[in-house]
Amino acid sequence: MTETKFLLPESAIPERWYNIQADMPNRPQPVLHPGTGQPIGPDDLAPLFPMELILQEVSGDAEIPIPEPIRGIYRLWRPTPLYRAHRLEQALGTRSRIFYKYEGVSPAGSHKPNTAVAQAYYVKESGRTRIATETGAGQWGSALALACQLFGLECKVYMVRVSYEQKPYRRSMMETWGATVVASPSEDTQSGRAILEADPDSPGSLGIAISEAVEDAAPREDTAYSLGSVLNHVLMHQTVIGQEALAQMEEAGAFPDLVVGCVGGGSNFAGLAFPFLREKIAGREIDVLACEPAACPTLTRGPFAYDFGDTGQLTPLVPMHTLGHDFVPAPIHAGGLRYHGMAPLVSQLVLDGLIRAEAYTQREIFSSAVRFARSEGIIPAPEAAHAIHGVLRAAAQADEEGRERTILFNLSGHGHFDLGAYDAHLAGKLEDIALPEEELERALKAIDALPKPAAGVR
Amino acid sequence: MTETKFLLPESAIPERWYNIQADMPNRPQPVLHPGTGQPIGPDDLAPLFPMELILQEVSGDAEIPIPEPIRGIYRLWRPTPLYRAHRLEQALGTRSRIFYKYEGVSPAGSHKPNTAVAQAYYVKESGRTRIATETGAGQWGSALALACQLFGLECKVYMVRVSYEQKPYRRSMMETWGATVVASPSEDTQSGRAILEADPDSPGSLGIAISEAVEDAAPREDTAYSLGSVLNHVLMHQTVIGQEALAQMEEAGAFPDLVVGCVGGGSNFAGLAFPFLREKIAGREIDVLACEPAACPTLTRGPFAYDFGDTGQLTPLVPMHTLGHDFVPAPIHAGGLRYHGMAPLVSQLVLDGLIRAEAYTQREIFSSAVRFARSEGIIPAPEAAHAIHGVLRAAAQADEEGRERTILFNLSGHGHFDLGAYDAHLAGKLEDIALPEEELERALKAIDALPKPAAGVR
Repeated sequence: MTETKFLLPESAIPERWYNIQADMPNRPQPVLHPGTGQPIGPDDLAPLFPMELILQEVSGDAEIPIPEPIRGIYRLWRPTPLYRAHRLEQALGTRSRIFYKYEGVSPAGSHKPNTAVAQAYYVKESGRTRIATETGAGQWGSALALACQLFGLECKVYMVRVSYEQKPYRRSMMETWGATVVASPSEDTQSGRAILEADPDSPGSLGIAISEAVEDAAPREDTAYSLGSVLNHVLMHQTVIGQEALAQMEEAGAFPDLVVGCVGGGSNFAGLAFPFLREKIAGREIDVLACEPAACPTLTRGPFAYDFGDTGQLTPLVPMHTLGHDFVPAPIHAGGLRYHGMAPLVSQLVLDGLIRAEAYTQREIFSSAVRFARSEGIIPAPEAAHAIHGVLRAAAQADEEGRERTILFNLSGHGHFDLGAYDAHLAGKLEDIALPEEELERALKAIDALPKPAAGVR
Repeated sequence: MTETKFLLPESAIPERWYNIQADMPNRPQPVLHPGTGQPIGPDDLAPLFPMELILQEVSGDAEIPIPEPIRGIYRLWRPTPLYRAHRLEQALGTRSRIFYKYEGVSPAGSHKPNTAVAQAYYVKESGRTRIATETGAGQWGSALALACQLFGLECKVYMVRVSYEQKPYRRSMMETWGATVVASPSEDTQSGRAILEADPDSPGSLGIAISEAVEDAAPREDTAYSLGSVLNHVLMHQTVIGQEALAQMEEAGAFPDLVVGCVGGGSNFAGLAFPFLREKIAGREIDVLACEPAACPTLTRGPFAYDFGDTGQLTPLVPMHTLGHDFVPAPIHAGGLRYHGMAPLVSQLVLDGLIRAEAYTQREIFSSAVRFARSEGIIPAPEAAHAIHGVLRAAAQADEEGRERTILFNLSGHGHFDLGAYDAHLAGKLEDIALPEEELERALKAIDALPKPAAGVR
């Protein structure tokens, strides 16, 4: 039997992040101030982010060195393994070869620590001692809690109340790593108190939690705000995934003609795909597929437009595929994919035809996840199950066409905290939810009503 | 910085299990039939176990080849990484070097699949198509469900009702891997029905669940019974852990003078320790420490005696350290360590002074687990936290004495399904439970009343 896992030594942890902005046929449009319609400058962001991250956000350099203390912490779980899915291939009876990069080996169980560790490092370097952030289902909050602990920073997490109550284990995980976690809306901020006054039983939302974290961080000199996806620098930090995968595929003596990832805000997808898109832009033929939920079909049904990143309209206007900043996706189990927008970098690359997208419903992605678990062992996170489903579809289609593909996907995390969803699936209780047409129309009208770029801005 | 992880290629997965029976100064005493007081023979066990496993149970060969299909499945997660705990050492300020072997990377999250896969293989080879087993907290049931799925066997798990209801996620995990799980006592067996008739609300116990699984398997030719610890062959299957660790310590340029593991039935401890005990028996100086809960102090306070392996007195009489077969340990969170007895192999080696033991209470082991999680990232299972606490004590003592030790321990699993226990610990709600003296006295009297070996049996 050929190898199942392709491992790399710690010395092969990438020394640089890959910044795709340097190579894009069209660089992303600028982020705008909603009042003036003018591009936002570094100084506008300085109250929230350390300057190093702001500079990374707009950098045109193709490669940015990874500081040694960050690589030192990456060593706790990186390089992550790349698997050849021998048993899955056999179970499918496919002629294609399937590989996956497994990011669930990090202590937090997903790819999120790749950027959490980097952000915590730069916050510490900037002299701050504390980070405030929001979290929905808790994956991002866990990763940042871990990273802050490792750099000796305080961490305050505003966790959407409904998740805080339904997912107490994710909260315990953050607290084990030393973070302070409050249910949002909370009594700790003005915006939280205002909402609680109007509705003491508010279940909270990611939008509200963002408002609270930003309000916490902005006025305090000791505190930075931190985001787990969407932003350019966040996606860039994830490119360690794809760089390792390139080296591992070479060790496996193969190169993918199809690269697949799930997309919510876009960070795990970008992490694997961008280093391969670099090859594609340089002329190599690669099909790059982003898989999203039909309940939140940002890339497949949302227009490319300027929109707010949050419900509360606190963020700048962001150029992206969006379903409207007040769109509330149905409560599917892939909580990490329930975001109304999409990273500007991914959005622009879809616009330019370098990435294509598909949307799937819950039952089909869980069926594929169970097939995967029963052949490869690992129980995937519901988010990653979207990528698996995309792979199974592609392999089946290739078999029909008599083709033999080499497929690589990102298994971005494990499903140890999502077994309630598997339970519902196995009991036949999951619903297939797609975005209704009338809701999409309403969302599109809301986007049309938003401020536009000032004259001359592109 | 020196390496954090020491990895081995798949080709380094051991080709043989190490059978310590060949090297023990005193081989374990025979298992006895409770009626006759005579040793049990292979034929007595044939209705429950495949003959290959029965032969392994009594083998005197030092090494037993691992069949290729088992090694093929081991490749899904083995060799497991060996870590140098740089950050923990720094946090402790110790002069000692601390290493750990991490078994939590298996899909089931613990060392249990090492033997589950082996057992499923031999059951399949014997022509059977189905395995029945019991599980308490669900770790063993998960491992066997996975193994059965990978070999295409049916798996029926009798899960202690109180865990079935309190730990639905472990049940979902087993079902995701295709097992059938029922709450025990169940309507599916005579012994289950009898108990339900007497007490419809019975919370169940491991003893009852064993009775049900044995009753299920014994009369059916297509079904084997399977146990996750205690038996000689189970411990032997785990020795892949220690063999890999020997190679990895060599790669790290170090050799441990202290080897530590937690003990419940004894399997993860034996898995790491036995290959090092082989070196110790050959003359190398190694201190070997077994860490158990003060609430179930089998090695530190239980006598070495013949006792039943289960509450229901269905098993043969086993020579071991025991607290009495009807002893019900307090409901500590380390469910995997709540067993009244101890593997005969471990028991005999303690008796012969090759292994020493210590017992700890809940609050101290969770404090050590949190220190570990905050420096190394990984959140340990409460069982493994006992080993961590043993290591922290040993390192502190060595520092006091001005010594510099090289310590290796088995981090047998992660705590992703135990975060409720961490929550209770962080909230200050955990109780320190030690076995009361009067309960121990009662247990010792019960053991005295048991059948003894027939004349001439040693």
